[in-house]
Amino acid sequence: MNFELTKEYVEHIEELIELKNRDAIRAELEDWYPADITQLLIELETEPAKYLITQLDTQPAAEILADLDPNDRKEFLKHFTSEEISRYVNVFDSDDAVDLLNEQPIRIREEVIALLEDREQARFILDLLHYDEDVAGGLMQKELVKANVNWNVNETIEELRQQAEDVGRVYTVYVVDDYGKLLGTLSLKKIVLAHKNTKIESLYEKDVIYVETYRPAEEVAELMQRYDLDALPVVNVQGKLLGRITIDDVVDFITEQASSGTMAMAGITGEVEVDDTIWEQTKARLPWLLVGMMGGILAAKFISFFEGDLKMVPAMAAFIPIIGSTGGNVGIQTSSIILQSLAEKSGMDDSLTQRLIRMFAVAFINGIIISCIVFGFNLLIGNEIKLAIVVSTALLSVVFLASFMGTITPIFLNKVGINPAVASGPFITTANDLIGYGVYFGIAHVLLQL
Amino acid sequence: MNFELTKEYVEHIEELIELKNRDAIRAELEDWYPADITQLLIELETEPAKYLITQLDTQPAAEILADLDPNDRKEFLKHFTSEEISRYVNVFDSDDAVDLLNEQPIRIREEVIALLEDREQARFILDLLHYDEDVAGGLMQKELVKANVNWNVNETIEELRQQAEDVGRVYTVYVVDDYGKLLGTLSLKKIVLAHKNTKIESLYEKDVIYVETYRPAEEVAELMQRYDLDALPVVNVQGKLLGRITIDDVVDFITEQASSGTMAMAGITGEVEVDDTIWEQTKARLPWLLVGMMGGILAAKFISFFEGDLKMVPAMAAFIPIIGSTGGNVGIQTSSIILQSLAEKSGMDDSLTQRLIRMFAVAFINGIIISCIVFGFNLLIGNEIKLAIVVSTALLSVVFLASFMGTITPIFLNKVGINPAVASGPFITTANDLIGYGVYFGIAHVLLQL
Repeated sequence: MNFELTKEYVEHIEELIELKNRDAIRAELEDWYPADITQLLIELETEPAKYLITQLDTQPAAEILADLDPNDRKEFLKHFTSEEISRYVNVFDSDDAVDLLNEQPIRIREEVIALLEDREQARFILDLLHYDEDVAGGLMQKELVKANVNWNVNETIEELRQQAEDVGRVYTVYVVDDYGKLLGTLSLKKIVLAHKNTKIESLYEKDVIYVETYRPAEEVAELMQRYDLDALPVVNVQGKLLGRITIDDVVDFITEQASSGTMAMAGITGEVEVDDTIWEQTKARLPWLLVGMMGGILAAKFISFFEGDLKMVPAMAAFIPIIGSTGGNVGIQTSSIILQSLAEKSGMDDSLTQRLIRMFAVAFINGIIISCIVFGFNLLIGNEIKLAIVVSTALLSVVFLASFMGTITPIFLNKVGINPAVASGPFITTANDLIGYGVYFGIAHVLLQL
Repeated sequence: MNFELTKEYVEHIEELIELKNRDAIRAELEDWYPADITQLLIELETEPAKYLITQLDTQPAAEILADLDPNDRKEFLKHFTSEEISRYVNVFDSDDAVDLLNEQPIRIREEVIALLEDREQARFILDLLHYDEDVAGGLMQKELVKANVNWNVNETIEELRQQAEDVGRVYTVYVVDDYGKLLGTLSLKKIVLAHKNTKIESLYEKDVIYVETYRPAEEVAELMQRYDLDALPVVNVQGKLLGRITIDDVVDFITEQASSGTMAMAGITGEVEVDDTIWEQTKARLPWLLVGMMGGILAAKFISFFEGDLKMVPAMAAFIPIIGSTGGNVGIQTSSIILQSLAEKSGMDDSLTQRLIRMFAVAFINGIIISCIVFGFNLLIGNEIKLAIVVSTALLSVVFLASFMGTITPIFLNKVGINPAVASGPFITTANDLIGYGVYFGIAHVLLQL
């Protein structure tokens, strides 16, 4: 059961594909889950991969395609005709079908939809194509089991029997009125335990958590986590039941969010993997390195104004790194904490003033401790007391400024609708560094002249 | 339905609590989900919060307690007697009960278990207390519905009826043999649609994904995501079914992992929230600021060796920031990409050599571009060509070294069993900075003497 992919195994499969030994391949893959075959597939070249997938039954092949990374899939499907694609999309869950079609050029998309054998699927897809990817409507699937509130258990089971094939996992039956308005839910457990003639009316749970189609994906994730939901029904503004969002899609969304947040913090554009090409990696990384470089050039230009001071007290140069790194570290810490609180959106937030006061108190304690230690170090190694005062004053100011910027920037970005995660990234760090050097040389210039 | 907590509402509830108006409170909270009441509860002082929760029925009150943040809960429960705690733990899911008890001092833990009315629950808890928190056994709950393979559908429904009250959500019925060995699964959908006399033998799904109790939590999360599972059965080494892990616990685990990764990157120890006390925030942040400070002091000490060079060419000081920031940025980018690939643990990894070669190629391109631009800038502002060569050579070397360190460090930490996420943190960044300054002043010292 515990599936491990080895180099030898991949080579063995490649050989079988080379020999076009269809029976051996099918026998080999029979016991595997589609998710395991996906792992194998991404290790193969395009041609053998295509051969492999066309040897499988339509259902597992479709699951593998649904499972592929969107970029890999887009590349891979270039080698398929619209007829071939439509054969797989025909058995997709409608949400996955829309994701796949959105990656395709419009012409292919329309051809595939036109070719779909299952006309209900085609209608589902056309419905779903209206929605943006990052709202509830874009996450939902049309497949669900619903029961009219006037039915009894027997009629519901009949409906379940008819729907069962299309609906992958039934978490719950949704109860609607004659107009399709969502009224509540009915768990399978209750259906199993109830008498056949019991009216749904008297069985179903009226408290139901739902979202409207236009709600952002973050809110969907937050709702499903807060209320521990397996599936969340989606309604239009009139309350009509349109679809459901299942927890597995939300898990994927949460994981993606987390990883793109980390990447943004590290100064990487988009998603990069260790086995991406050299060009892809360079493209993702160079822009932020250039931002950092521009900051460095500005810092150099700026410091060169103070060359006179540096000639007088060359020891000043030695403290450039500590000023930069302290400002950077404090800024990132502060903005990360603020970012997390923005992401969690707790019910009732402290006011901005309260936050700033607390941040400043923390900054004060940290700043005083660091300044004192560095002051002691300066005296210990026999630096002039004037320089020691300059360095420690600058450090304290930098800690304060970086705390302020780290608090304000993500809140401001969030307000104006920019992803606040960039506030932990290289751009803001670079800005903080520059401010730090400004403070340091400014203070030095004034104090050393005295 | 869309629950929003306002300051006014909290004050309203506080007043009702003040007046000890039990009926009004119950009426007020009746329509709310436990998760909503949790939001309200954390806004209250300890005494009113305790009053509020004791006015609720045991079941919702228990759900609220299970929902609380562990630290808040630990503080809160100090104001409860063991009898009071046991009343709630009695109706907890066994996995949540164990989490709560693990936060308590041993004496309280034993008292609560002794006082539990539901003796099966007590046995479940004693079973689960054996397992570490971060393995499959520590995530599982004992509540599940199992059916003997020799039963028919009717007998299974009977069992379901008896278990239904204890088992929160039934995703699937687990099929076992006479010795309790896990054989497969049976979905509720199949039970609903099957004839009453059908043998389970002929209905159930033999392919089942499971974990052993000792498997790490990361592996559990990975399995459930890869195979899109709602629940994962847990077995002992003999294959006997012991419990199940539900997807909501894994979602919590994934979210915690992601946020602690981000925090580690930002140089913050543990979990800090914006509304933690000043002291908690300082404690979480100061250690890493001190690490950064030590690095800064070392850098200062180090640069002061080169005061002679600096006196000769004060413009050298101006490029200290760009050396530091470029090294830092490249290091973090590289280690983040490596970290991500370690976290994803794809089936078949590239060899270390292949990774290093690719990393170096990317470093070479990025390094060359940055060095050339900075070289141009130096000539443009009229710096000496010698200095320009020193700076650009140092930059190129720093990019290479930081790429190397960023690749090697997380892989090494991972090998020796330390959480590699610290490799994106302040410690490694500081080390990279120091190496960068070493390279810069070393090259400068040699080249400028020529």
